[in-house]
Amino acid sequence: MWPNTRLVKKLKITLPIIQAPMAGGVTTPELIASVSNQGALGSLGAGYMSPEQIHQTIRAIRSLTDKPFAVNLFIPTDFLVNQQQIKTMKKILAEIYPEHDATKEPVIYPFAEQIQAVIEAKVPVFSFTFGVPEDKWLTKLKRNNTVLIGTATTVAEALFLEKKKIDLIVAQGFEAGGHRGSFLKDPMNSLVGNFALIPALADHISSPVIASGGIMDERGIVAALILGAEGVQMGTAFMTCAEAGTHHAFKKLLRQKKLPETVLTNVLTGRTARGINNEFIEELNHYANKILPYPIQHALTAPVRAAAQQKNNLDYMSLFTGQAAYLSQGLAVAKFIKQLDKKVRKLLQKE
Amino acid sequence: MWPNTRLVKKLKITLPIIQAPMAGGVTTPELIASVSNQGALGSLGAGYMSPEQIHQTIRAIRSLTDKPFAVNLFIPTDFLVNQQQIKTMKKILAEIYPEHDATKEPVIYPFAEQIQAVIEAKVPVFSFTFGVPEDKWLTKLKRNNTVLIGTATTVAEALFLEKKKIDLIVAQGFEAGGHRGSFLKDPMNSLVGNFALIPALADHISSPVIASGGIMDERGIVAALILGAEGVQMGTAFMTCAEAGTHHAFKKLLRQKKLPETVLTNVLTGRTARGINNEFIEELNHYANKILPYPIQHALTAPVRAAAQQKNNLDYMSLFTGQAAYLSQGLAVAKFIKQLDKKVRKLLQKE
Repeated sequence: MWPNTRLVKKLKITLPIIQAPMAGGVTTPELIASVSNQGALGSLGAGYMSPEQIHQTIRAIRSLTDKPFAVNLFIPTDFLVNQQQIKTMKKILAEIYPEHDATKEPVIYPFAEQIQAVIEAKVPVFSFTFGVPEDKWLTKLKRNNTVLIGTATTVAEALFLEKKKIDLIVAQGFEAGGHRGSFLKDPMNSLVGNFALIPALADHISSPVIASGGIMDERGIVAALILGAEGVQMGTAFMTCAEAGTHHAFKKLLRQKKLPETVLTNVLTGRTARGINNEFIEELNHYANKILPYPIQHALTAPVRAAAQQKNNLDYMSLFTGQAAYLSQGLAVAKFIKQLDKKVRKLLQKE
Repeated sequence: MWPNTRLVKKLKITLPIIQAPMAGGVTTPELIASVSNQGALGSLGAGYMSPEQIHQTIRAIRSLTDKPFAVNLFIPTDFLVNQQQIKTMKKILAEIYPEHDATKEPVIYPFAEQIQAVIEAKVPVFSFTFGVPEDKWLTKLKRNNTVLIGTATTVAEALFLEKKKIDLIVAQGFEAGGHRGSFLKDPMNSLVGNFALIPALADHISSPVIASGGIMDERGIVAALILGAEGVQMGTAFMTCAEAGTHHAFKKLLRQKKLPETVLTNVLTGRTARGINNEFIEELNHYANKILPYPIQHALTAPVRAAAQQKNNLDYMSLFTGQAAYLSQGLAVAKFIKQLDKKVRKLLQKE
């Protein structure tokens, strides 16, 4: 039997599994609704969306499920970039991958408008990373009874979130794919493996801990519960699901038996993230001192990655994924979650 | 009940727990023998020992236990250093910590003589890191029925060890303290967290996998078993034991509630290792391009660390430890292992 946790009660779900928010088209309404319809929690990675897109996508999710789901945003941080730096990076990108439209201006949506959309939509759950929303937003979200999920990569960050009365805390282990959520220190100085991070958070904070990073199957889930988590957040495990918007070439790559290794890099977006190494990363590595801060670097490389997606060229996409991606299964969501549930119950019984 | 594994049979022990070999005085004969007398496996970190010291220490262990124990050595790698570089580093060290004896010549014992001593002593178990011994040594060790334990930080390294017919493989996760055992690629490009590394090794190789890194209590042990390990190797957990030779000031530091964070650094020994950050590391960081390869850098910084130990000065010791050191308990070995055994059984029953 799954342990009866505070987490499932708080989120009004039946399985303590959260499908991780993955920005950039992976988390389709179909993926999110299918996950929530199975009793787990689907999450929309809305960090790169316009307020209108956020509204539209939430409506689409609600047309497919009446179960709780989460919407996730990136908390903005200050940055300073001048036009000359942007021009330089554009030139570098034009040289590296001339096949993209270099005339496109970088698109960045103001956080205030994004979160306003989330608040207006009265979403059941709001999750966030790279920090904590300002108090004025937290007040509005709480007034809507929206459950709040923050992301911590260290004990210090978890204590910070707890002080802000965030309901649930995701422990993002070293193994995790995608952007590092670190916000108190540099991400490269906030890397803690899950064998240390999960018990440390469980021992130091009283809010329920959601383990994430490298959790792909029943073994990862049960191990996380034993280390002190009350639930898990799984990203890569859902990327190859039929309903996920992951590019088909990337899905195929993820299901290869011999997967290339992942690296931690800031060259694609200006923020440290884990993904499979490719030509794009290798070439940008030559310009390490020219990489601009997030989200400018992200906005500038977006046309390159979009063009590469159109040409099915894995060498110039962003291939964000965790360290245990070799366990990807490529099932439909309903089958994947049902199997997972059954296998977790069996493993919990056996031990 | 503990699962009945191939590991305990192979090692002729009753508990699948290995006290990690820690070079530099931590693994006293008393520590090793106490661990083995409890049915687990004690290990001597002999990497910095002369052949005579190895012989003497093995005799001391055998006077305290008739149970199996392991001896561990570092596999040497080629390096090229000139006298001018050594002179420069000595000057840097004299400036950083003038309180040490800068006249001491660096001491490095030839591996051939070290392993000859291990072979002569017909030890029950030989473990190693940084690579694999040459075939001529493996043949001699196998002729003595010595069980061989290698160290892998990636699947590729584990497959390499398996091809060499190494009996048991330690999976050294990102969380682990001390030197990274990586030998096929640079250690900084071979960092895999235990949530990915343990299942990956269990899924890719047929030899029994021993999990290590961040395992401090019954939660870590049971989680490792669930992820696919047949046993665990614990280092930091034994460092505060009464029988351990850990410096008393370091033991006290490890038992503090609010422990400083660990870093991965190569400045202390020339090889990447995890330890608590201190002044010595911070100051050497200013000379990153002057750091010499292992074992020269280790031998050159040894007098500094020795002097700091004598002065109880934690700022200039090497404070190697894993990411979950906050769980250190400071018990005597017998009590620690008995409690651990009981708690693991209880946790396995409960799940």
